[in-house]
Amino acid sequence: MKPEIFNEMIATRRQIHKHPEEGWTEFETTYLVYERLKALGYTKILKGTEVIKTDCVLGRDEQLVQKAIARAVAQGVPQSFIDAIESYTGCVGILETARPGPVVALRFDMDALRIEEADTADHLPQVLGFRSEYPGLMHACGHDAHTAVGLAVARWVMENKDRLNGTIKLVFQPAEEGVRGAWPMVQAGLFDDVDYVLASHCGGKAGPGEVALVHRGVLASTKFDIRFTGTPSHAGNQPHRGHSALMAACGTSMMLAGIPRHGDGTSRVAVGRLVAGEGRNITPVHAYIQAEVRGETAEVNEFMCENVRKIVMGNAMAYNVDYEIERVGDATTLDRCPEMIEALREVALGIEGVKVLDLKSPAGSEDFTWMGKRVVAHGGQCAFFRWGCRHNGHHKFHFDLQDTESMPVAFKMFTGYVNKMNGQN
Amino acid sequence: MKPEIFNEMIATRRQIHKHPEEGWTEFETTYLVYERLKALGYTKILKGTEVIKTDCVLGRDEQLVQKAIARAVAQGVPQSFIDAIESYTGCVGILETARPGPVVALRFDMDALRIEEADTADHLPQVLGFRSEYPGLMHACGHDAHTAVGLAVARWVMENKDRLNGTIKLVFQPAEEGVRGAWPMVQAGLFDDVDYVLASHCGGKAGPGEVALVHRGVLASTKFDIRFTGTPSHAGNQPHRGHSALMAACGTSMMLAGIPRHGDGTSRVAVGRLVAGEGRNITPVHAYIQAEVRGETAEVNEFMCENVRKIVMGNAMAYNVDYEIERVGDATTLDRCPEMIEALREVALGIEGVKVLDLKSPAGSEDFTWMGKRVVAHGGQCAFFRWGCRHNGHHKFHFDLQDTESMPVAFKMFTGYVNKMNGQN
Amino acid sequence: MKPEIFNEMIATRRQIHKHPEEGWTEFETTYLVYERLKALGYTKILKGTEVIKTDCVLGRDEQLVQKAIARAVAQGVPQSFIDAIESYTGCVGILETARPGPVVALRFDMDALRIEEADTADHLPQVLGFRSEYPGLMHACGHDAHTAVGLAVARWVMENKDRLNGTIKLVFQPAEEGVRGAWPMVQAGLFDDVDYVLASHCGGKAGPGEVALVHRGVLASTKFDIRFTGTPSHAGNQPHRGHSALMAACGTSMMLAGIPRHGDGTSRVAVGRLVAGEGRNITPVHAYIQAEVRGETAEVNEFMCENVRKIVMGNAMAYNVDYEIERVGDATTLDRCPEMIEALREVALGIEGVKVLDLKSPAGSEDFTWMGKRVVAHGGQCAFFRWGCRHNGHHKFHFDLQDTESMPVAFKMFTGYVNKMNGQN
Amino acid sequence: MKPEIFNEMIATRRQIHKHPEEGWTEFETTYLVYERLKALGYTKILKGTEVIKTDCVLGRDEQLVQKAIARAVAQGVPQSFIDAIESYTGCVGILETARPGPVVALRFDMDALRIEEADTADHLPQVLGFRSEYPGLMHACGHDAHTAVGLAVARWVMENKDRLNGTIKLVFQPAEEGVRGAWPMVQAGLFDDVDYVLASHCGGKAGPGEVALVHRGVLASTKFDIRFTGTPSHAGNQPHRGHSALMAACGTSMMLAGIPRHGDGTSRVAVGRLVAGEGRNITPVHAYIQAEVRGETAEVNEFMCENVRKIVMGNAMAYNVDYEIERVGDATTLDRCPEMIEALREVALGIEGVKVLDLKSPAGSEDFTWMGKRVVAHGGQCAFFRWGCRHNGHHKFHFDLQDTESMPVAFKMFTGYVNKMNGQN
Repeated sequence: MKPEIFNEMIATRRQIHKHPEEGWTEFETTYLVYERLKALGYTKILKGTEVIKTDCVLGRDEQLVQKAIARAVAQGVPQSFIDAIESYTGCVGILETARPGPVVALRFDMDALRIEEADTADHLPQVLGFRSEYPGLMHACGHDAHTAVGLAVARWVMENKDRLNGTIKLVFQPAEEGVRGAWPMVQAGLFDDVDYVLASHCGGKAGPGEVALVHRGVLASTKFDIRFTGTPSHAGNQPHRGHSALMAACGTSMMLAGIPRHGDGTSRVAVGRLVAGEGRNITPVHAYIQAEVRGETAEVNEFMCENVRKIVMGNAMAYNVDYEIERVGDATTLDRCPEMIEALREVALGIEGVKVLDLKSPAGSEDFTWMGKRVVAHGGQCAFFRWGCRHNGHHKFHFDLQDTESMPVAFKMFTGYVNKMNGQN
Repeated sequence: MKPEIFNEMIATRRQIHKHPEEGWTEFETTYLVYERLKALGYTKILKGTEVIKTDCVLGRDEQLVQKAIARAVAQGVPQSFIDAIESYTGCVGILETARPGPVVALRFDMDALRIEEADTADHLPQVLGFRSEYPGLMHACGHDAHTAVGLAVARWVMENKDRLNGTIKLVFQPAEEGVRGAWPMVQAGLFDDVDYVLASHCGGKAGPGEVALVHRGVLASTKFDIRFTGTPSHAGNQPHRGHSALMAACGTSMMLAGIPRHGDGTSRVAVGRLVAGEGRNITPVHAYIQAEVRGETAEVNEFMCENVRKIVMGNAMAYNVDYEIERVGDATTLDRCPEMIEALREVALGIEGVKVLDLKSPAGSEDFTWMGKRVVAHGGQCAFFRWGCRHNGHHKFHFDLQDTESMPVAFKMFTGYVNKMNGQN
Repeated sequence: MKPEIFNEMIATRRQIHKHPEEGWTEFETTYLVYERLKALGYTKILKGTEVIKTDCVLGRDEQLVQKAIARAVAQGVPQSFIDAIESYTGCVGILETARPGPVVALRFDMDALRIEEADTADHLPQVLGFRSEYPGLMHACGHDAHTAVGLAVARWVMENKDRLNGTIKLVFQPAEEGVRGAWPMVQAGLFDDVDYVLASHCGGKAGPGEVALVHRGVLASTKFDIRFTGTPSHAGNQPHRGHSALMAACGTSMMLAGIPRHGDGTSRVAVGRLVAGEGRNITPVHAYIQAEVRGETAEVNEFMCENVRKIVMGNAMAYNVDYEIERVGDATTLDRCPEMIEALREVALGIEGVKVLDLKSPAGSEDFTWMGKRVVAHGGQCAFFRWGCRHNGHHKFHFDLQDTESMPVAFKMFTGYVNKMNGQN
Repeated sequence: MKPEIFNEMIATRRQIHKHPEEGWTEFETTYLVYERLKALGYTKILKGTEVIKTDCVLGRDEQLVQKAIARAVAQGVPQSFIDAIESYTGCVGILETARPGPVVALRFDMDALRIEEADTADHLPQVLGFRSEYPGLMHACGHDAHTAVGLAVARWVMENKDRLNGTIKLVFQPAEEGVRGAWPMVQAGLFDDVDYVLASHCGGKAGPGEVALVHRGVLASTKFDIRFTGTPSHAGNQPHRGHSALMAACGTSMMLAGIPRHGDGTSRVAVGRLVAGEGRNITPVHAYIQAEVRGETAEVNEFMCENVRKIVMGNAMAYNVDYEIERVGDATTLDRCPEMIEALREVALGIEGVKVLDLKSPAGSEDFTWMGKRVVAHGGQCAFFRWGCRHNGHHKFHFDLQDTESMPVAFKMFTGYVNKMNGQN
């Protein structure tokens, strides 16, 4: 890759790293993407509610959004831009070559995590001065790099636009963490005309110099926020007057862990967080659970979801409390398109020094799967790959991906694939 | 008391002790009572469905009843008697003196327990040769003595009938264990005309030579049989197809134990038995729980009952199984009638060597309370006392009450009270 | 009472109300008490580590203490005062008359609660402008009034010092909420020479114009902070690597609720707060429980404590996590001294318009009980009374006690008792 | 196959079907096998403690064994035979040809299940008159057919002994249900010299005319009997004195269901039966759980076992009861020997009308796996196949395998394999 693209890509990644924004609050990032695409000469740029079907949005906290908007505006994002996107993040740049050829979509996610970044001397972002400037927020899963790769690819596409065919869509997705952002982008119709859709993630089981093609193992998943509301009472004088939301949450948690294994494939259930109660001697009124389930197939995942619902309802009845179940994230399984996997294998094998792996065992979840399923539904293809890096644990406060060493491979995979599919011979 | 009544009373107690019959199966005992009352000259003797309102009966197992009938008939109870009582046990002898005076009812219970009696050399019934002849059944709570006292009192009443006023009802109740038999006797109308109703129990906190007057502490109680029905599945191949009745029973048991204490008085909850499942590797289809709750007031008991219902329903929903809750026993609290208590105190103090106690702390439950409540409802009075004995634990396989030493006090209390209320001055 | 004392008492209560300080952080309040006592002419004033045995302190959070010190200093409390008390709150004023007579101690507690005070138009402190100025903190249990009464009594004592005998100790206790402060005051030896110790609380079951003498029902209580520490793991990829502190906390909570009732008296258990987990898809590493138990006797309370320990240890073992149990508060039962109760009855009946109640049923807990037990141990007496007020729920955000109408009764009770015990005839 | 062998095989199966014997009680069956082998001319027949290492035996109930011996003796099994086998079932017939060649072992299991057999007109054994004559026992998994096939193979081997090489071991195993019998046979040294060991099961996912070669999916498994012993107490008077074994069993069951999924492969856990408690109002003293775990690998199974142990210990501690964990069955995973699988494929394809399947997904468990592992450990090979049949559910009261249509395929597979390995060319 050209040194100037490389340098810009690394700089962009580090710039984004300093201002991490969690899902649905990527205002600075979306504005940066938008401004860059415009500067590169893209004439068709969709953003905000043009790419997000708002009534399909999951897990968006209006209070968080408003605080982030205030911060973004303070950082120089024009209020007019916020108005234009109607407070919804996400941006898509489209190059229509007017020449016959396939519609190829590339997905890049942009959101950060609620983690306080390490500030120790062995943490590269600290050492090199691009550690997060926002307390409690951190790009600890590499989406900063994903976005920077996307912008580098966008530059390459524009620089090569005269020798490309068909249409190329560069999709900058919000809220991948918690598998929230893909579904409303799909519902906005962005993928209805797409022939091939490609996405990637850094790290995971792929080490430095490795590209891993994903065949199986991306689990369908649903994320739940569960709330119980009970009745307070003084635990010393009138324990019988109280209805404990805390106890309902505990009963629920124990039963969730006990949902039977599924005979038809891998399943998962996790209760990751539970906050309940107001004070030591008051029957707890409020309880809040963050849970998630996963399944090797959509059917297995739905089996888990159905059990979650019954368990929550049952505990609410047993403890005489009110309940609310909110679906705050949703991902499906990855459709496997062998032809596209093989095309990517060829691209990868063409990159010097790259070793190719094939992944088949159960791993995490990705809401890119919704984009893939939509494209496959009308006869297209999808694929997902991992580009390796030296890292020491995703979602950890000392996560790093050794950008200069790892990101070029990602760039070459995306541009190589576009070249293969849209390049004029 | 006259030596011949004493001797007969002790002999009767030991005879009944040899043939213990559990609740609703007291066929031999009922027949014995009936025959004795008839022989004593009682002309008004009600029995079976005349004293039991059958549609109010709780906790009666038809299969047990049929087996007991077969055994009783084999022991010489005429089939015609079984037919006459329509398979319902219980008997009431009534003396109407035709002279003005109060209606006084005395309650004696007749049923035994499912306990295998001790056969060791330190167990008096074994040594003296009147140990239970029925395997797995035992009069381990002294109701054999209660019945024998009742018959001795019946003899005394008849011997003194010319100097008594008003009406005397001698009520021989079935199924006190599990608090089942009193309610259908009350519903049969037996106590609608009663002015004073009196009952007693041997032992408890009363030691030898003591009579304890009960002021408070008889807890209202409800007994539940709970059944869950799930869906079987092979636990290895298709665990997801099963719905476990066993897990619903376990969740229920844990939540039952966790019903909040009540601020207005003592409460109790017990899960005494749980049987679930068919085999190690099959999702359990059937689960059965024996539980009970108690309360210092009817309100506290009802609070417990309401929680039982919600917990069972909630677990059935959470585990997607069917449920059934059967109320198999019910007792209420003891109404306190100070005037009658004081009358009993006078009677007790008139018995040589007797010491009087006053009981006020929470103890067990008694369905005699329904009789008391009915009598109090129309302006009458009720009372309950304990006559002490040397014993080593009710409901234990080595229970004994030292009959010759303890039973005379009971006889003197009942006859003394009748004398006080119905005796001609 | 004299108008100037009345006016000052009400003003003091409202002043304290504006600056509520929770347990062990009562720096402004302690300084206010100290300055007032000094101004009144008390020459023997003990404070901080003079009245608190520091190694007996329970439930004191150093971080909270430091923050509160900073706030207090900003509000004008001299750093030298903080140094003098060695960061421990609490103050005792002592009048030694040098005339023979009993040592009478009066206890007044000073701490507030973590509650956000109501700001509605029906809330008197809001209307009259003395609502809490500290967000999230509120005198919602009337300890502001207790302290103000104590200072008014201190003034009356000094004004009457020439006609009083013996010794009068005015004990201003920190950290009564959570039953934390009394024990280290007792251990500091403050009550070793006391003949009579008296304390009170506003409200409860006592309505306006009522004084309630407490005979029974103050429950022994122990407060626990329970912490579990597990092992994190990605819930999607490696659920088997995680050991969930959250699940251990849920199992613990369910089992705590299920500790059996005690046959010898009232018991209580409450799990008031549970916070566990770090994120939706990470096996939870940290879990924190706030719990408490109570018992009608010290034995019942210890039975509950013993069960708490076993349950926590058992869950730690079952879930393979570490645990920590911290006892953060402790109260015992109230010793009943009939003679002192009757003396208080006389005082109360001497106050115009006051109606006297006798309380015997289970209610809350009080760590004043430790002071009482120490005094009784060496032959002295203790008592506790409630002075009524119109209120709408202790520990509620709209609690108020109608100070002008209710506080004078408290003042008259304390001064009346001192007059009775220490007044020269 | 020869008609006389076919007829005898069917008749033998039906004879065994009439007298089903559960694990470790196969006295009639062992005697029948022994007598047949002797009649066929086998000179080396090992039995009882010659083939079972008694101190390695799992899940053998001495009481059941004694009852079964009495029944067997009543059915004509000589007491001398019982003495000779020292009350341990199992029999092995060995043909040593004295010619060089491999040692081939064939395993046939003999035990029945505790199921009451169907007696309806649509149940073939009922219609044809060979329904179980033993109430509550049934060959509901086809081991009667396995044994009959084994004896038919034994006859074929003897009829062909002059044209066979090497050694052929015909292993008739007791107690396969509950995976109990294989381990002590392995420990007895029977497989130390075996080069190839083969076993089979009827039915499962293999339909009529199908032979299924098992590659993967035989789960390692451990069976547990768990017992808790608590302290009794009257639930009304002294609930605090009791320690409930029932509650410990319920807590254990809920936590067992909640053992985390394993990231490295399929796991299973089942609580199939729970019996606890003695009476409604007595704190339960005894609780008994039948549970099992499984794992795709031995490591996954051991992970489950380790959790079982910790959970049981943790609950015993939390509820202050004693515990006992008994391992009553154990199976490991199936070693995959591709060469032997292919050899079997050839044999199967040589049988007219047979279709061959390859099984790879998780299914049940088999303790034959211990035999396979021992043989593979010293360089040999093992394999397992299923021969299909029309059936309507293993372990169901109406199970049948359509013997005349399905058993010949099993016979041909075993004899075909022996012919292939030991036949002289």
